[in-house]
Amino acid sequence: MSVHVRDVLRQEVLEANLAIPRAGLATLTWGNVSGVDREAGVFVIKPSGVPYEELKADDLVTVRLFDGAVVDGRLRPSTDTETHRCLYLAFPSIGGVTHTHSTHAVAFAQARRDIPVLGTTHADTFNGPIPCTPDLTAEQCAKDYEYNTGRIIVDLLDGDDERAREVPGVLVANHGPFTWGAGARKSVEHAIICEAVADMAIHTLALAATAPPPRHLLYRHYTRKHGPGAYYGN
Amino acid sequence: MSVHVRDVLRQEVLEANLAIPRAGLATLTWGNVSGVDREAGVFVIKPSGVPYEELKADDLVTVRLFDGAVVDGRLRPSTDTETHRCLYLAFPSIGGVTHTHSTHAVAFAQARRDIPVLGTTHADTFNGPIPCTPDLTAEQCAKDYEYNTGRIIVDLLDGDDERAREVPGVLVANHGPFTWGAGARKSVEHAIICEAVADMAIHTLALAATAPPPRHLLYRHYTRKHGPGAYYGN
Amino acid sequence: MSVHVRDVLRQEVLEANLAIPRAGLATLTWGNVSGVDREAGVFVIKPSGVPYEELKADDLVTVRLFDGAVVDGRLRPSTDTETHRCLYLAFPSIGGVTHTHSTHAVAFAQARRDIPVLGTTHADTFNGPIPCTPDLTAEQCAKDYEYNTGRIIVDLLDGDDERAREVPGVLVANHGPFTWGAGARKSVEHAIICEAVADMAIHTLALAATAPPPRHLLYRHYTRKHGPGAYYGN
Amino acid sequence: MSVHVRDVLRQEVLEANLAIPRAGLATLTWGNVSGVDREAGVFVIKPSGVPYEELKADDLVTVRLFDGAVVDGRLRPSTDTETHRCLYLAFPSIGGVTHTHSTHAVAFAQARRDIPVLGTTHADTFNGPIPCTPDLTAEQCAKDYEYNTGRIIVDLLDGDDERAREVPGVLVANHGPFTWGAGARKSVEHAIICEAVADMAIHTLALAATAPPPRHLLYRHYTRKHGPGAYYGN
Repeated sequence: MSVHVRDVLRQEVLEANLAIPRAGLATLTWGNVSGVDREAGVFVIKPSGVPYEELKADDLVTVRLFDGAVVDGRLRPSTDTETHRCLYLAFPSIGGVTHTHSTHAVAFAQARRDIPVLGTTHADTFNGPIPCTPDLTAEQCAKDYEYNTGRIIVDLLDGDDERAREVPGVLVANHGPFTWGAGARKSVEHAIICEAVADMAIHTLALAATAPPPRHLLYRHYTRKHGPGAYYGN
Repeated sequence: MSVHVRDVLRQEVLEANLAIPRAGLATLTWGNVSGVDREAGVFVIKPSGVPYEELKADDLVTVRLFDGAVVDGRLRPSTDTETHRCLYLAFPSIGGVTHTHSTHAVAFAQARRDIPVLGTTHADTFNGPIPCTPDLTAEQCAKDYEYNTGRIIVDLLDGDDERAREVPGVLVANHGPFTWGAGARKSVEHAIICEAVADMAIHTLALAATAPPPRHLLYRHYTRKHGPGAYYGN
Repeated sequence: MSVHVRDVLRQEVLEANLAIPRAGLATLTWGNVSGVDREAGVFVIKPSGVPYEELKADDLVTVRLFDGAVVDGRLRPSTDTETHRCLYLAFPSIGGVTHTHSTHAVAFAQARRDIPVLGTTHADTFNGPIPCTPDLTAEQCAKDYEYNTGRIIVDLLDGDDERAREVPGVLVANHGPFTWGAGARKSVEHAIICEAVADMAIHTLALAATAPPPRHLLYRHYTRKHGPGAYYGN
Repeated sequence: MSVHVRDVLRQEVLEANLAIPRAGLATLTWGNVSGVDREAGVFVIKPSGVPYEELKADDLVTVRLFDGAVVDGRLRPSTDTETHRCLYLAFPSIGGVTHTHSTHAVAFAQARRDIPVLGTTHADTFNGPIPCTPDLTAEQCAKDYEYNTGRIIVDLLDGDDERAREVPGVLVANHGPFTWGAGARKSVEHAIICEAVADMAIHTLALAATAPPPRHLLYRHYTRKHGPGAYYGN
């Protein structure tokens, strides 16, 4: 039942994975990126436990969307594969998913706090706070844990594809960030931005119990990068 | 209407832009530097959305000072171009402008706090606090947002060229630092120093509700680098 | 009385030592890793005071387990050698030991606080808090100080090899982390993880007086990597 | 009046200066190291304002100890030269001096706090807190400012060469650390350690209002590296 995805997708997923250590978001082998080919009904994901410096396009694993079966690849797919799959199934506009344990985003996840919108750096990408999920229940942990991690993310966004486009990332309580985008590259960019705004937010909160910035400023920054009136280069 | 600026300016602006990631102030493509040729009535600025590692002198965009028209270059100029233009028009002594989203300076901007003068590292370059602007109004955000961002900076310094020379940088509330200098290279040096003193200030404030350092010490450090009695090498 | 250990062990210990600076855990020559050959009754350890960038496999020192005598090597073994030896003697399952002065783990050690379990990053590797020892007494410092440092670690874990496997690292009060694992490579991985979770924990504690994460989530993360039901790639 | 120092001293001072950016302690051209040749009555110091990446042994400046005259070199010596000279004259055991604006040490200097002894990392090198000077007076700033900076350091240590050996560094209030050692290399090592322990101390103080570590432990760590009973490799 081998299914071959286009080489261009494998290459993009490889490069997106390698962007994680290059951006300083990786400890050891932590983190993973996938990219989907909706026509072929599969996605390509990092294998489990391979060091970034040894990762090759050939090591990537191809997984079937509808049941999670491995359809190509010699290695085991990332342990978080079922979370990625759940997100692809729930949000049709998603083309790539990234998961990291980046330090400052994890700190918010461990404190079970949303990352608040404290400035334009955040508003350029996320149209609202980066929300933190509630805890998973004992039942959700005991069986299909990774798929349930996806479900709690989907539930937090009310399964709304439009919201998933406007807020392309979420913190899983006590765990860390999952981000997504139109493709693998965009999903890892959102992971990098999520970490950067978490870092800025921690320092901002230490400096002041800040009042929120004016909504018109945040709106301006989001809309100059997104939607019909966008004029910010990407 | 093509206008060619001297190659030496393009090269300086290119190198000043590349100093941003080298100094660790860049996330993705964030940040931009420009340099002005007042005789030709134009300035040269980074294009929008080009990764630093691919940036070439040819990619830089030449913009006319008096109306912001692009007069040379294949790419779109930085979204922040109008802010740079406003600063060049208001402050005749400025030869270069830099904007970054560096983490600690942004934290002060997001907390809407001036960076206070806490030591000689700050006083060596900035003759007083690095001030933070007030919020832009809804009207200032709705139309000519980027130019208005320049205006709020100019207003903060009372349009005073002398003050702009003594305090070569400002924090735009909720956004981040804009710095400037005699040329592009100096403007990016001031961005690097702004981030360094913000980082030091955050730790200092965490360690103590500090009394301000003695003014005579700060005066000594500023004047040994600036003005007629300067003897500090640059 | 020269004893030659297998080249493969020397090479593993060399690479594990070099992983310390590569992971950003080293200041100057600080830190050391050893690996044991239980059949030969010896362990191999970094020499004292050699810069990482000059370290060669030939510089490693072979030490006899039962009495600490140097049995091979031109250089003096690490000052902390007796601590390593004590841990090997007390815990039969340990194959490698790492000691660092990594910044955030040391901060917990200096605050004499356990690193609490605040999330899944921690629970993936440590089945409970990374505990901090009590202070050494004046007598324990005056004589056999390094061996006594090992003893206070062993006592903290009740000399229980099973606990040492489940919590592969400890903070020595006012000093820093000692971690271990099945081999030298695993012990340094645990040092890297210990530092990463300490860094996350400091930020988490600053953001919130957090309630502990649900135990079922932590249990799930530990058991998906360890024990008979493990399915997480390494 | 040209005086040539031994090439070995120039080379050591060059390498010690280059260790500053390599250790991450430099912003732009900040920081300087010197080394003394007491027999020749001169010291060699970094020139003012030269970027580290362009610094060559030929750029170093040779300065006469007794009056501060430049006796060899094309460039101006570091602005802080008179502070170095004052320290060499006051403390006969000093062979090298380093000054940096490293972030965490500066934070303590700006908060005008000593770096307290919070653990063995500190006690391995500094036999007591790294003390912070009082403010310089207006008179001390107005004339011979740099030499007076040296005097306030010397006064803080009661001009005691023995204390200068036991505590090889001081924070100048609102300014930053000056460290020293038997030679240039040792002085920069002490600058690196000063920054590392300042970083650890800031995190430790954030985690706990710590009680001081037991003195017998600190004594043990200092004496295993220093004095007649030392057995720690360097």
